[in-house]
Amino acid sequence: MNYNVIRVLVGKILVLVGLLMFIPLITAFVYVEDLMNIISYIIPMVSLLSIGAILGYVKPPKDTKMGAREGFVIVSLSWILMSLFGCLPFLISGYVKDFFTAFFEIVSGFTTTGASALTVDELMNMLENGGHSLLMWRSFSHWIGGMGILVFILAIILESKDGSALHILRAESPGPQVGKIVSKMKVSSRILYLIYIALTVLEIAILNICHIFDEEMTFFDSLIISFGTAGTGGFATTPMSVGLYQPCVQYVVATFMIIFGVNFSIYYWLIIKNFKDILHNEELRLYFGMIIIAVIIVTAQIVNIYSSFEEGFRHAYFQVASIISTTGYSTTDYWGAQRWPVLSLGILVLLMFCGSCAGSTAGGLKQSRLLIIGKYSKAKVKTMISPRRVEVIRLDGKPLDNKVVDSTVAFFILYIVVIGLGALLISIWNPQMTAEDATPTTMLSASLACLSNIGPGLGAVGPAGGYAGFSWFSKLVLSVEMIAGRLELYPILILFSRATYKKST
Amino acid sequence: MNYNVIRVLVGKILVLVGLLMFIPLITAFVYVEDLMNIISYIIPMVSLLSIGAILGYVKPPKDTKMGAREGFVIVSLSWILMSLFGCLPFLISGYVKDFFTAFFEIVSGFTTTGASALTVDELMNMLENGGHSLLMWRSFSHWIGGMGILVFILAIILESKDGSALHILRAESPGPQVGKIVSKMKVSSRILYLIYIALTVLEIAILNICHIFDEEMTFFDSLIISFGTAGTGGFATTPMSVGLYQPCVQYVVATFMIIFGVNFSIYYWLIIKNFKDILHNEELRLYFGMIIIAVIIVTAQIVNIYSSFEEGFRHAYFQVASIISTTGYSTTDYWGAQRWPVLSLGILVLLMFCGSCAGSTAGGLKQSRLLIIGKYSKAKVKTMISPRRVEVIRLDGKPLDNKVVDSTVAFFILYIVVIGLGALLISIWNPQMTAEDATPTTMLSASLACLSNIGPGLGAVGPAGGYAGFSWFSKLVLSVEMIAGRLELYPILILFSRATYKKST
Repeated sequence: MNYNVIRVLVGKILVLVGLLMFIPLITAFVYVEDLMNIISYIIPMVSLLSIGAILGYVKPPKDTKMGAREGFVIVSLSWILMSLFGCLPFLISGYVKDFFTAFFEIVSGFTTTGASALTVDELMNMLENGGHSLLMWRSFSHWIGGMGILVFILAIILESKDGSALHILRAESPGPQVGKIVSKMKVSSRILYLIYIALTVLEIAILNICHIFDEEMTFFDSLIISFGTAGTGGFATTPMSVGLYQPCVQYVVATFMIIFGVNFSIYYWLIIKNFKDILHNEELRLYFGMIIIAVIIVTAQIVNIYSSFEEGFRHAYFQVASIISTTGYSTTDYWGAQRWPVLSLGILVLLMFCGSCAGSTAGGLKQSRLLIIGKYSKAKVKTMISPRRVEVIRLDGKPLDNKVVDSTVAFFILYIVVIGLGALLISIWNPQMTAEDATPTTMLSASLACLSNIGPGLGAVGPAGGYAGFSWFSKLVLSVEMIAGRLELYPILILFSRATYKKST
Repeated sequence: MNYNVIRVLVGKILVLVGLLMFIPLITAFVYVEDLMNIISYIIPMVSLLSIGAILGYVKPPKDTKMGAREGFVIVSLSWILMSLFGCLPFLISGYVKDFFTAFFEIVSGFTTTGASALTVDELMNMLENGGHSLLMWRSFSHWIGGMGILVFILAIILESKDGSALHILRAESPGPQVGKIVSKMKVSSRILYLIYIALTVLEIAILNICHIFDEEMTFFDSLIISFGTAGTGGFATTPMSVGLYQPCVQYVVATFMIIFGVNFSIYYWLIIKNFKDILHNEELRLYFGMIIIAVIIVTAQIVNIYSSFEEGFRHAYFQVASIISTTGYSTTDYWGAQRWPVLSLGILVLLMFCGSCAGSTAGGLKQSRLLIIGKYSKAKVKTMISPRRVEVIRLDGKPLDNKVVDSTVAFFILYIVVIGLGALLISIWNPQMTAEDATPTTMLSASLACLSNIGPGLGAVGPAGGYAGFSWFSKLVLSVEMIAGRLELYPILILFSRATYKKST
């Protein structure tokens, strides 16, 4: 293991995180917040910049060679460290009293989960008693985490030599295969970020136009909601989530959630007018197919619950878009007051599990993995029938490398195992939870919603509920699940695996 | 496809099922039941024997060659046909009014699931108004289905030529690998059945000794409970299940459930004093390890709910044994009156998923598959760390064939997919179910409990509930799941796959 290259890159990331804290700091100045809030950013910023500078710029390593394991360790270490520093503003400012709640909250931010461990009082206290900058930091962390901080580093700093950067991109980017858009890694990362920024700005602009019809949609709210949508995160300003706004806002946000769940390569192809590849993209077809079918079924089932067809359709469209894109915003309490029929809830659970497209900012298993898993299963049944036949698995017409199929299958299995294990671990000890809240539904859907980086689940963690009732131990387990889910398991598994630190063979 | 060989074997099985109906017929005579009951066996028996004889013994095929696909088709067709004929006594006798309920009930019997779609009234009507023979038929079907009707055919009829019998054994026997105990298939099947009969007789004997302490445990009940235990089925005489009897009976039944969840090869090794293989059997260690850990945790959690430590331990021991062996008997209502804490429920769900040992009469994923999946996942993570290393997966010290690993992994994936798909399908339409009953917990655990051939789940299908509330469509879906689970997916998938009927390549 090349520890020097790990040290240097982790250091550079810490510096970057320190710089990104200027955003909430500026917000604190704009809203003329308490001195304590200003200090709560200054302390972590100074620490991040100084520690980062020492690690990242003192004694640059001569040997910059990096393999897969260095890539995994850099990515997982960076994510853990940036979460540890990132939760400090919540604690220092005094708006959150407890370390594990603050850590859960910022992990939920960076991983674009959007699950909140704040109580309703704590959240309203932030909004009403001068904590705008903290809300901004929470939502801005979605935006940073969505595309990935290391991808950002690649876009601005690294000169890629001997393909080492690919190992990092592979460890941080979602999906079974890493597609470089163009041959040069740095250019690829830049294109991705430019598309990301452009789409985010577009959403902010449209939401500000919506302000004409909805005075709740202030400029501040438009930033919060756009960051939450772009990163497919889900933090809002109030516990009402997007239900706070008028229907027009809800349609806009739902549509952007779907947009941010699409593989960003598609947008690049749009720009360079490569329509052939777009039309032949199986993942995209599956994604839109799922959305359309789910919206139709759910609308048909829930239309009687609401006052008009439009309202039923809107809630179906919004919730489906929110869950499949793993954003987690909501406009209706499908588990509580307006309890949906069980098939619609089942569809939501299925979508929680599936997630969006690879190469998007969304979490979950990913549509392309579903495709590969489906084709793999079909091939296996065929092999059972005719044992001598060799089945080739194709995606978008091209035969898939066996290694990709293999690691996708292993990923699926690990995903299931982690969901189950997580659900068991968070079931162990929650003294503050009532027996009505601590059901298998709550535990299983909390584990699934955190690993898939969605946010809300069913039961006590439904759209009107939250994660405040869990014990510190459960919050820690769920935080690990969120990071593991965002980084797609392997980096975290590898960080905690003994074999990683053995001499390479 | 060699249709002639399929026809002949299916015919022979129908004859055998016809003959096995003598057991409930005799019971009807012993209890001097209505003429209608006698007729309800005579009609299917005459049909089975005549149709079976025509198919099985007229024009024997010249070409007896059989491949994997013929094996799969024979097994799945036989199971569907014997269920169709097997449900007739319920309908003709008039104790069950509706075809899908009767079909569900006998499928639940043959597949050793033990889930009942009868209402409490219907079941009590059978017991109190002259339906002992039907209860006997229901429970005897557990005993037939436990070891497998085709394995029985192999043991008594077939002379195995060119290994065709292996294809049948492979299709009907549970577990990732088919281990022949001795080199000759026919001898193997006989040894298995002799062990099976011996253990069943032993349980009947012990339960009759228990009669001294518990007058509820009549000779009739001892047969019913022993057949239910031996096949790891779970049908009892009353809705109280084994909770009807005294603690001594509960301990005996629990212990036998664990015994019938062990790979039967172990007992053969015991007889021939091959202790080395027993001690090195990883599956056995995992199985007992899981039982011990689960009993300890559950006991610790539930001991406060019951009046004494003994009672808490007994219920923990019984429920863990019942679920891991996929039997489904219960002694306490862990979902209702004595609601267990969520971790204990989570452990039960985990055990539902895992199941017992391969080569036993139990359902579920099987412990050996868990071992293979665990080792596979570990190997994959290691390969991620050192891409050039080749990991060999070993079981009981011997390296596993790649094909076995591959098909185990595919099985795991298909298992998950079928559980999810089944849960969605049974969510669609159940007009008689209240919104409180039709929860995601009910649907998911019903699908899991049927596919794993357990019986009770959580929610409305918990130990005090049942499957009577489902619509005919949901009952049909669950029936298919039970058969698919008992035959471990592939035979049913292959029966309904177009590729099966294409000209072989």
